[in-house]
Amino acid sequence: MSLEAIRYKNGRLDVLDQLQLPLKSVYDHVATVQDGWEAIRRMKVRGAPAIAIVGALSVAVELQERNFATAESVSQFVSTSFDHLRTSRPTAVNLFNAADYFTSKAASLAKDHPEDPEKVKSALVEEIEAMMDKDLKDNKSIGEHGSSAIATRTHAPTRVLTHCNTGSLATFGFGTALGVIRALHEKRLLERAYCTETRPYNQGSRLTAYELVYDQIPATLIADSMVSALMQSKSISAVVVGADRIASNGDTANKIGTYQLAIAASYHNVPFYVAAPSTSVDLNLKSGADIPIEERPPDELLSIQGIRIAAPGIHCWNPAFDVTPARLITGGIITEHGIFEPSQLAEKLKSVGD
Amino acid sequence: MSLEAIRYKNGRLDVLDQLQLPLKSVYDHVATVQDGWEAIRRMKVRGAPAIAIVGALSVAVELQERNFATAESVSQFVSTSFDHLRTSRPTAVNLFNAADYFTSKAASLAKDHPEDPEKVKSALVEEIEAMMDKDLKDNKSIGEHGSSAIATRTHAPTRVLTHCNTGSLATFGFGTALGVIRALHEKRLLERAYCTETRPYNQGSRLTAYELVYDQIPATLIADSMVSALMQSKSISAVVVGADRIASNGDTANKIGTYQLAIAASYHNVPFYVAAPSTSVDLNLKSGADIPIEERPPDELLSIQGIRIAAPGIHCWNPAFDVTPARLITGGIITEHGIFEPSQLAEKLKSVGD
Repeated sequence: MSLEAIRYKNGRLDVLDQLQLPLKSVYDHVATVQDGWEAIRRMKVRGAPAIAIVGALSVAVELQERNFATAESVSQFVSTSFDHLRTSRPTAVNLFNAADYFTSKAASLAKDHPEDPEKVKSALVEEIEAMMDKDLKDNKSIGEHGSSAIATRTHAPTRVLTHCNTGSLATFGFGTALGVIRALHEKRLLERAYCTETRPYNQGSRLTAYELVYDQIPATLIADSMVSALMQSKSISAVVVGADRIASNGDTANKIGTYQLAIAASYHNVPFYVAAPSTSVDLNLKSGADIPIEERPPDELLSIQGIRIAAPGIHCWNPAFDVTPARLITGGIITEHGIFEPSQLAEKLKSVGD
Repeated sequence: MSLEAIRYKNGRLDVLDQLQLPLKSVYDHVATVQDGWEAIRRMKVRGAPAIAIVGALSVAVELQERNFATAESVSQFVSTSFDHLRTSRPTAVNLFNAADYFTSKAASLAKDHPEDPEKVKSALVEEIEAMMDKDLKDNKSIGEHGSSAIATRTHAPTRVLTHCNTGSLATFGFGTALGVIRALHEKRLLERAYCTETRPYNQGSRLTAYELVYDQIPATLIADSMVSALMQSKSISAVVVGADRIASNGDTANKIGTYQLAIAASYHNVPFYVAAPSTSVDLNLKSGADIPIEERPPDELLSIQGIRIAAPGIHCWNPAFDVTPARLITGGIITEHGIFEPSQLAEKLKSVGD
């Protein structure tokens, strides 16, 4: 039984409150779009794919509860709901892509069935629900492509480092970068996974470590500052991280610290991979310079679980993400459609879409 | 009034318990060599120069309390005491250098004054006490050399990044790397200091931030993972760090994360300086590969102030230091005798010693 960040059944949505992990495992009921917005904003749920799924499912849940007089009013509700969800967090693009898609889908359904709001509603709910299976399937493909590539490039048994959490807790299941590690483990090609703490929010020590222990994958936790020392003292086969938004040229926004990992990997000649579904790619942006980077409240750096850990009065800088330039993504970008060089990503995905 | 990590007056030694900073400011009485050993081992006092001073002062304190029948028994006591202190922590060399010096000094004093244990005792106490003034004076010289070099190399106002704590709390006063930042600030050449959290022990957020706020130096705290993003988004003038042990070839052991900082600095063409008194240099070691690296208990990574922050069952790697190769120390090594290229350090210090 795999960990579930998102529970959805018969139109009822419950989300694991990841703020309370690993100490407590509590599910919060998400009954409205506003509940979904808050779960995302407060980071009860995080991870680019999971954010998109929870956001969209919160729309599906409220759609099913409401009665609409016209097909147009269904479309209006979908558009307004996703517009609100867009304001929750700025960096990950998957929710924006989902918002674009479902808003346009709702408009075209309303146009095709102007007299049948129930049909529009049920068609939308069905499509939103399909995101869950699609995500799981995409992640398994990512795991397969990534594990094969790493096993081919380096001799097994492999030692793979990851950052932040990109596992079952960041997706509907299996995970992206952590899915690649899971796939290596399932194929008995993994000697050990290394995960960073991922300050200041500790997604590595709280969430990734939790998943690795849960799945009994041999794993070692290190502080973010220990990555280079690890690469200096042990032979690391690959670094695999997720993505919150990938620009057309392959520049990748991901959890703060990813850029530094990529520099360390380059210095030590360790191949560096990004693993993400194609919904994390933003073809509207030319380069990473255009990706908006969220700054989080300083308190996340100053306190842990309400306990002050830094000197009072100190000023903080707390960006939640950074941008890794395409040239440092030396292994490639692993998507459900295969592994691509960053410079070829946009072209390849366009041809897949054709 | 500057912060005091070490209070010593009339043969009484009190040490600020840095484990309790910044929440509480509590001084612990150090009455014996064993008390000194424990203050060092438990990291109530840390920082290579401060460790050496507290270790030696604990010997001076107990020397003054004891009665010795012979000069030889004084020498024996000094030798045994320093041998015990050597087992407290392995990486910083300053205490080892002090142990070598005072053990040999005690032997020669006992030889010169075999009938006068009181004279041997008082001569040793006087020499040990002189370490305090010497340290402060050396740190002011380091500050002067370092601030001049950085101001010459980069245009003021400067933005300087440091790691761990190398200030008044890590020395008898003023500090080494933080002394350079203090000197820049005093000369009105500093726009802003940046300090890393320095996981897992948080010497940056707890201690350096505390000193910077205390001295009203404009400063920003960042997580260790944010260093590269900082260098990417803001123009950083220099990185200055301390040292726990510098090998003959200039390779430098310092707080875990220093090596990664040096790689990030090199990638961004930011000059990287090590600031340390010549007592941090170990001419017996050819290279950094010979420096013993302390591994600390995993619990430091798993809990903060008794609160569990990582998933239960996860394995940890917790090296307290790493080694930065000389080639990455692009700015040079700042000592009380001036700034040297790492490759010239050993030769220059030998000529100073002549």
